Amino acid sequence: MQKIRLGIVGYGNLGRGVQLAAAQNNDMEVAAVFTRRDPSAVKTVLPVRVEKYEAMKDYVGKIDVMILCGGSATDLPVQSAEIVQLFNTVDSFDTHAKIPEYFEALDAAAKKTGHIGAMSIGWDPGLFSLARIYFGAALADGNTYTFWGKGVSQGHSDAIRRVAGVKDARQYTVPVESALERVRNGENPQLSTREKHTRECFVVAEEGADLKRIEKEIKEMPNYFADYDTTVHFISEEELQKNHSGIPHGGFVLRSGKSETDSKFLMEFSLKLDSNPEFTSSVLVAYARGVYRMHKEGKTGAVTVFDIAPKYLSPLDEGEQRKQLL
Amino acid sequence: MQKIRLGIVGYGNLGRGVQLAAAQNNDMEVAAVFTRRDPSAVKTVLPVRVEKYEAMKDYVGKIDVMILCGGSATDLPVQSAEIVQLFNTVDSFDTHAKIPEYFEALDAAAKKTGHIGAMSIGWDPGLFSLARIYFGAALADGNTYTFWGKGVSQGHSDAIRRVAGVKDARQYTVPVESALERVRNGENPQLSTREKHTRECFVVAEEGADLKRIEKEIKEMPNYFADYDTTVHFISEEELQKNHSGIPHGGFVLRSGKSETDSKFLMEFSLKLDSNPEFTSSVLVAYARGVYRMHKEGKTGAVTVFDIAPKYLSPLDEGEQRKQLL
Repeated sequence: MQKIRLGIVGYGNLGRGVQLAAAQNNDMEVAAVFTRRDPSAVKTVLPVRVEKYEAMKDYVGKIDVMILCGGSATDLPVQSAEIVQLFNTVDSFDTHAKIPEYFEALDAAAKKTGHIGAMSIGWDPGLFSLARIYFGAALADGNTYTFWGKGVSQGHSDAIRRVAGVKDARQYTVPVESALERVRNGENPQLSTREKHTRECFVVAEEGADLKRIEKEIKEMPNYFADYDTTVHFISEEELQKNHSGIPHGGFVLRSGKSETDSKFLMEFSLKLDSNPEFTSSVLVAYARGVYRMHKEGKTGAVTVFDIAPKYLSPLDEGEQRKQLL
Repeated sequence: MQKIRLGIVGYGNLGRGVQLAAAQNNDMEVAAVFTRRDPSAVKTVLPVRVEKYEAMKDYVGKIDVMILCGGSATDLPVQSAEIVQLFNTVDSFDTHAKIPEYFEALDAAAKKTGHIGAMSIGWDPGLFSLARIYFGAALADGNTYTFWGKGVSQGHSDAIRRVAGVKDARQYTVPVESALERVRNGENPQLSTREKHTRECFVVAEEGADLKRIEKEIKEMPNYFADYDTTVHFISEEELQKNHSGIPHGGFVLRSGKSETDSKFLMEFSLKLDSNPEFTSSVLVAYARGVYRMHKEGKTGAVTVFDIAPKYLSPLDEGEQRKQLL
C-alpha cells in the first residue's frame, strides 16, 4: 500500500508530536521536516530528513499533506495561505476571534491550486467543537458548557513570566468541580467566568524579589487573572522542574437539556491528557488522513472538523468501520 | 423559510418522540404519521394528520424525509428498502450482526430512485458509534470500551416476561463502577462480559407462583442472563408502576491509550437519559436535517453516521457554526 506522505512545518512540541503520532499509524510516513532554523541544529526524536523552509517547493509531488506546526499568532496566518497553494495542509489555528477571516483567506488560497486546507484541528478547537455541534444538533432545547483543565495554559504561564522579579512560572487552569456538578445535575446554571475556572500559579521568583508585589501584580492582571480566583505559590526552581515540567491538559464539554415532555438528558465529553501537544498532534495526523482521502475525491478549499465526515478519519475501510465500530 | 417536511412511519414510543423532537426544531414540520393500525385509533401527542401505511405513495413530493420508527427485528428490514424508493429515509436499525447486509439492501434500493437512506441512527448505534470512530482515529494506540446503563433493556424485560408465572418485569443493565474506574485509570483491562455489567430485575409474579423457580430460570437463561451477575427482586404491580415505569438509559464510551513517549490519554463520552426513545428520536430528527441537506447536494444511497459530516446536522449555517461552535 502506498503510504500517506506527510511533511511537518515547524519542529517544536507540536512538530515532534506529529512525528511520534505518525509512527503509530501504519498508513503514514513523514517525508521531511521543514524549519526556519538551521536544519543541522534540529534534533528530531526519530530519524527524518530536515530541510530549510524554502526547500518545500522541491517536495511538490512528494508530499501528500503538510502539517503546519507553527503558532497561531504570527506563523499560521502567513504560512497557511502560502503553503496550501503547493500542498494540502492541516493546521491547529486557534485564535478564536479570527477564525472567520482565516477561513476565507485559506479557502481562497486553497482553491487557486485545487488543494484542501484543514484548519483549527486539535482538541479545542477540534474534538471539543465536534462535541458542541453534535450535542447541539441532537438536543435542540438545552445549554452547552465547556470547561478546561486541569491543565497548563502556556499563555498564562508566559504572562506571569513577564512580571518583574519572576524567573519562571507554570499556570494551571482548573475547572470548578461544584460548577461541573451543577451542570451535571441539570440545573442549567448561568455561570460567570469566575464561577467556572480557578487559576493556580507556581512561581519561581528572582532572589530578593518582592513576593507580595509579584502576587498582587499577577492577581490583578487584566484579562488573564483579574476575573478569576487566583492562587499563587512561590516555589524553588528545582520544585518547578520536578513537579511541573509536564504539559498536561484536558477538559469537559457538557450539554444538558430536555424533551418536550421534560425528560432530562445529559451529554458529556471529556479528555484527560498527560501531554497537550502530543494529543493535539495525534488529532492532526488523523485529519491528515481525512484530507488526503477527501482530496482524492476531488474536494478543495478550506475545511474544519465540521466539514469532514468521520469515515475519512479512520484507518479502517468503510465496510470494516460499519462492522467493527457502528 | 421552507421547512423540512417530515413523515413518521409507525407511532409507538419512537414515533411519538419524533413528533415531540420535531416540535423543538423551528426548521421542521411533521406532515403526516403513517400507521398499519386504524388511523382513527391512533392518539397523537400533538395534532397531526394520521394516514394508513398505504397512503404513503400519495405523499411523494410532499414529504422530504420519512423517519421510520418501526422495530429492527421485522419492520425495518422490509419497510426501509421499500420506502426509500419513494422518499429519503432515516431509521434506527440496531441488529448489529445484520448491519452489513442491511446496508447493501438499503443502498441498492435508495440508488434505484436517487434517494438517501440513513440507517442505524440513534445513540447506540449512532452517537456512541461516532465516539468509537473519532476516538480510534485520534488515538491510534489504545483500547475502546463501551458500557451501557444504568438503563432499561426492553429485550431483557421481554425475556423475563416470557418466564412462566411472571406477570410483568423491568430489567436494568448496570455498568460495573469498578470496571469503569479501571479503564479511567488507564489500566487497559481485558474485561469479561460478567465484569462489565450486572443485570437487575424487578419482577411481578402471578399469585401463587414459585418464586424460587422463576428466579432460577431468569438467572440461568442463556444469552440474556447466564453470563452476568443477576439480581432478582420480586415486587408488587403497584411498585413496578410507581418506581419503574420510565425508560431511562445511557452509558459510556471510553478510549484509553498512549503516545510513543508513553504519555497517557483518556477520552470519555457519556449519556444520561431520562427517556431512551425520546432521546433516540431527537437524534433521528437531527439526522433528517442532514439527509435533507445532503440530498439537495446530490448525494444518494445508504449512509450511516460515519458518512455524514457534522455541518449537515446543525440548524446553524456554516459561517455561524464556525463562529459559535468551532
